[in-house]
Amino acid sequence: MPNYKLTIAYDGRRYNGWQKQPGSTNTIQGKLEEICGRLLNEQVEVVGSGRTDAGVHAIGQVANVKTNSSILPDELLNGLNDHLPKDIRVKNVEKVNDRFHSRLNAVGKHYSYRIDNGRVADLFTRKYSTRVEKPLDVERMRQAAYYLIGEHDFTSFCTNSGKKKSKVRIIYSIDIINVNGKISIDIHGNGFLYNMIRIISGTLIEVGLGKKNPEEVKDILEALDRSKAGITAPSTGLFLVSVDY
Amino acid sequence: MPNYKLTIAYDGRRYNGWQKQPGSTNTIQGKLEEICGRLLNEQVEVVGSGRTDAGVHAIGQVANVKTNSSILPDELLNGLNDHLPKDIRVKNVEKVNDRFHSRLNAVGKHYSYRIDNGRVADLFTRKYSTRVEKPLDVERMRQAAYYLIGEHDFTSFCTNSGKKKSKVRIIYSIDIINVNGKISIDIHGNGFLYNMIRIISGTLIEVGLGKKNPEEVKDILEALDRSKAGITAPSTGLFLVSVDY
Repeated sequence: MPNYKLTIAYDGRRYNGWQKQPGSTNTIQGKLEEICGRLLNEQVEVVGSGRTDAGVHAIGQVANVKTNSSILPDELLNGLNDHLPKDIRVKNVEKVNDRFHSRLNAVGKHYSYRIDNGRVADLFTRKYSTRVEKPLDVERMRQAAYYLIGEHDFTSFCTNSGKKKSKVRIIYSIDIINVNGKISIDIHGNGFLYNMIRIISGTLIEVGLGKKNPEEVKDILEALDRSKAGITAPSTGLFLVSVDY
Repeated sequence: MPNYKLTIAYDGRRYNGWQKQPGSTNTIQGKLEEICGRLLNEQVEVVGSGRTDAGVHAIGQVANVKTNSSILPDELLNGLNDHLPKDIRVKNVEKVNDRFHSRLNAVGKHYSYRIDNGRVADLFTRKYSTRVEKPLDVERMRQAAYYLIGEHDFTSFCTNSGKKKSKVRIIYSIDIINVNGKISIDIHGNGFLYNMIRIISGTLIEVGLGKKNPEEVKDILEALDRSKAGITAPSTGLFLVSVDY
């Protein structure tokens, strides 16, 4: 059965997140399934690598679609972009092995959390970053991030879903880049828990503002207690950059 | 009399251009004068380096304001940014000699015209660039741009205002930069005529699409005839980057 891998960008602001849900009509997955269904003349499931929350953006979300149609990848790409709203774009379509599963085969993800810490807010990126007025000490943020690298139980850095699943994940790297007050926290890991990037970012922002010491992050991790970590930073600054297979 | 030099960024989409005009209420200059008036407790004129058209953006428009108030530059900056709409930001305020005039003392301007020529449109910059679907030959555009450098009568590249003023201007440089299909036409000159950057950009786009030969630009210049040049490219891709003094 033909199987297509889609790479998708979207502006999360107008949507109730990636995942189609009963009663929640305006989702990225829902839009994609609607247009795919029309183009392929059959009802299909667009399986994402993972959900993104309401308001979160993507530069390179990955999904796959199985269909009985043998549409050419370029036809599917052009057809989708012709009919999707302009704030969702399919960047690439390729035919893949029918065993490829965008979620089960994902081995890593890159996220980027963007902060505008310039003296004056940048009006051109204000809808795609979180504004922090007071100056952040990026070096302190880097020191704090160091404690998060590696394999840890990230219970303190997730919004508890009430499930008994393992909260152990591996963070391969956290790069904090500052270009004239545009700060991005780039995180690469094998997988992420619910709100994990936003809670890590919120915590690092508090460290950067001097509200927490870098060394406290070690204690927060060990506490296995969400209430010890910082705030959940707003969705507006969060981008799913890419998914590794 | 205290005189303040303001450096201003704005998103032109919601505004009827820079210049305050009778009957046209929603202008950048109008907004600035309204808020300045409130902060300084007197009616002031915010003199811009030049007008920008409806929809045109600015990264570094310059204006000056004379006032009887001796407000501190930082107070003026913060006061303006507190009260201006978020799509207008004052990036810098400095006290200058009372003879400084933002328009009369300007000796050069940088504009940037931004084109999204990627295979798939970039949704995050779509409101700040002009989308060109077909691939542009950037090397041809550079060859064409070469003929525009220097001192010329740019009658062919302006929308005739019906006035008898000189249409001679100097273009110091035109750099056409292509980063993965994001093309910017960066133009530096001593001054620009009405719609000049947009007509130059429209003409270079036609050259890039193969509709015109690069050498034709020489003939277009010499013709002193607007109808020989290309289209006026849309305002959405145009940025006033900076003003030289």
